[in-house]
Amino acid sequence: MIPLWLDLTAVGLGGVQGALFASGFRGERRLDLLGVAIVGIVMGFGGGVIRDLLLNQPIGALQSNWYLVTAVVASLVGMLLAGPLSRLNGLIVGLDAVVIGMFGAFGTSKALGLGLPILPAVFVGVAAAVGGGILRDMLMSLPVAIMHVGSLYAVAAAAGCLVLVVLDLFHVPIFIAGIACVVVTSIIRWLAVIFDLSLPEQRMLNRRKVATETGVLPVIRR
Amino acid sequence: MIPLWLDLTAVGLGGVQGALFASGFRGERRLDLLGVAIVGIVMGFGGGVIRDLLLNQPIGALQSNWYLVTAVVASLVGMLLAGPLSRLNGLIVGLDAVVIGMFGAFGTSKALGLGLPILPAVFVGVAAAVGGGILRDMLMSLPVAIMHVGSLYAVAAAAGCLVLVVLDLFHVPIFIAGIACVVVTSIIRWLAVIFDLSLPEQRMLNRRKVATETGVLPVIRR
Amino acid sequence: MIPLWLDLTAVGLGGVQGALFASGFRGERRLDLLGVAIVGIVMGFGGGVIRDLLLNQPIGALQSNWYLVTAVVASLVGMLLAGPLSRLNGLIVGLDAVVIGMFGAFGTSKALGLGLPILPAVFVGVAAAVGGGILRDMLMSLPVAIMHVGSLYAVAAAAGCLVLVVLDLFHVPIFIAGIACVVVTSIIRWLAVIFDLSLPEQRMLNRRKVATETGVLPVIRR
Repeated sequence: MIPLWLDLTAVGLGGVQGALFASGFRGERRLDLLGVAIVGIVMGFGGGVIRDLLLNQPIGALQSNWYLVTAVVASLVGMLLAGPLSRLNGLIVGLDAVVIGMFGAFGTSKALGLGLPILPAVFVGVAAAVGGGILRDMLMSLPVAIMHVGSLYAVAAAAGCLVLVVLDLFHVPIFIAGIACVVVTSIIRWLAVIFDLSLPEQRMLNRRKVATETGVLPVIRR
Repeated sequence: MIPLWLDLTAVGLGGVQGALFASGFRGERRLDLLGVAIVGIVMGFGGGVIRDLLLNQPIGALQSNWYLVTAVVASLVGMLLAGPLSRLNGLIVGLDAVVIGMFGAFGTSKALGLGLPILPAVFVGVAAAVGGGILRDMLMSLPVAIMHVGSLYAVAAAAGCLVLVVLDLFHVPIFIAGIACVVVTSIIRWLAVIFDLSLPEQRMLNRRKVATETGVLPVIRR
Repeated sequence: MIPLWLDLTAVGLGGVQGALFASGFRGERRLDLLGVAIVGIVMGFGGGVIRDLLLNQPIGALQSNWYLVTAVVASLVGMLLAGPLSRLNGLIVGLDAVVIGMFGAFGTSKALGLGLPILPAVFVGVAAAVGGGILRDMLMSLPVAIMHVGSLYAVAAAAGCLVLVVLDLFHVPIFIAGIACVVVTSIIRWLAVIFDLSLPEQRMLNRRKVATETGVLPVIRR
């Protein structure tokens, strides 16, 4: 249903993003090479595994050797790029937005394809989009980002998945609807980061958190 | 197997309870509106999702639009009630006991209906009953309550599920056995909270924890 | 596919090891009896449950009453032994290495038996081998050991699973290949602990962590 090259692209981008993120920590929370690789694999695989568990389908990423090869290579690339790109926090956020959009699109369209109603289909998409990040934060013993410094993270994913569902209702081809999902998710997420948009409470909470937290934050602040 | 209205009742009560619990935190651990809603959805959905994953069945909560609508509305209700009810800690505990009992009854009876042996059926019931709370604590970066301040939490669920299994062996109709499960679980949990019953070590540990922990505790203490 | 007595042996050893580990904590992180039992059950069950979820198969440990009986009895044995054996940290590590090897062998061979390609089969084996420990650390609110103080933990499991896959390619009977997997995993893990082998960054990080962490560490240090 989802073409292999496209699925592998999401896994690869997720792996690069995860390894970039994990490489950025210093001090107490610094990870060794193996830890960085595990985070990369989790971010590349997580969304798809959660999607297929929720859909009670065979895990797509385990049906071919290519997924693991892609995730491991992507993690290595992420590690190598972490040094030169350490100042380009924007790149990490940008990649993240695209990856969230892709996992959301894959999750929602696969759920619709299996005949799920529209709201559960959006739920599966959002869970696939944000699930990798939740697993990452749990593995790294970080506060789960989506709960505290949301920056419209889950909202961006939900908006994209809703757009896909609505376009599908109007018989727009799924490939076009999927692209629209990625674009909408990415734009909302980028705007949220650039203009520091957030729910009112988030803003108040964020201010306090930024002061107390250690390590890099996966968001640009001004 | 489980009537839709009954399943939705459990999801709704779980959602209200989760949002009430999550709204109670202040300071470092305070959540924004979206975070509170996510906790509500997790507490409404968690038990059923864990049950169906363990039973290798399609996730019940994803087969109809009503589950998500119920969970989201319940979370909103929980948020609105959090202010006026903030002193009624007893209500949160009471709701919690009933929800645990219902998820335990649904989990055990569905497992028996699929032909599982009695001990695994009890295990699925207990996992469904306490699983939502474990997910909640992990998402909120709290110590997992069931491990430390147990207050016979898992024991209450296990006792209720055992009663259901025994009644089922004696061919008592499943609906009656399920009600017995909810009643037994709730009474044990209420008695535990009212009389501060706990395993000997728990009592010792609790005393120390209460002093050091921040935020509201989901138990009444005297 | 996996003989019942062998599967129960892994569950039992995992349960003993988990309860021994959980009993060792003092102070803030001390668990009550119920908490220790839960950790024992999680360590006995975790690997198999993760394996069967990833393979989209019915959870093996829920198909017979014996698994739960074994896990609970093993947890009790682990608790009773925790006092007399508290100085034998080496025993905990030794048991752990064998359990990892067994879960890795079961996971990889079951995946191969279901027709998965070789890399995903190794992935399922490693996830089954280290998954129980990850769940344990999350439940106990500990930093996830495999991310920080790896001591070639995941590498040992991966090496064992790879050996199994290669032997299987050469048509070595699966039982022999499985034994080789357990032996290779255990030896690598033992050597890593005895000679304090680790990735270069790990060594640096470990030095720092040992000084700051509380509670027993599940590794021998000199």
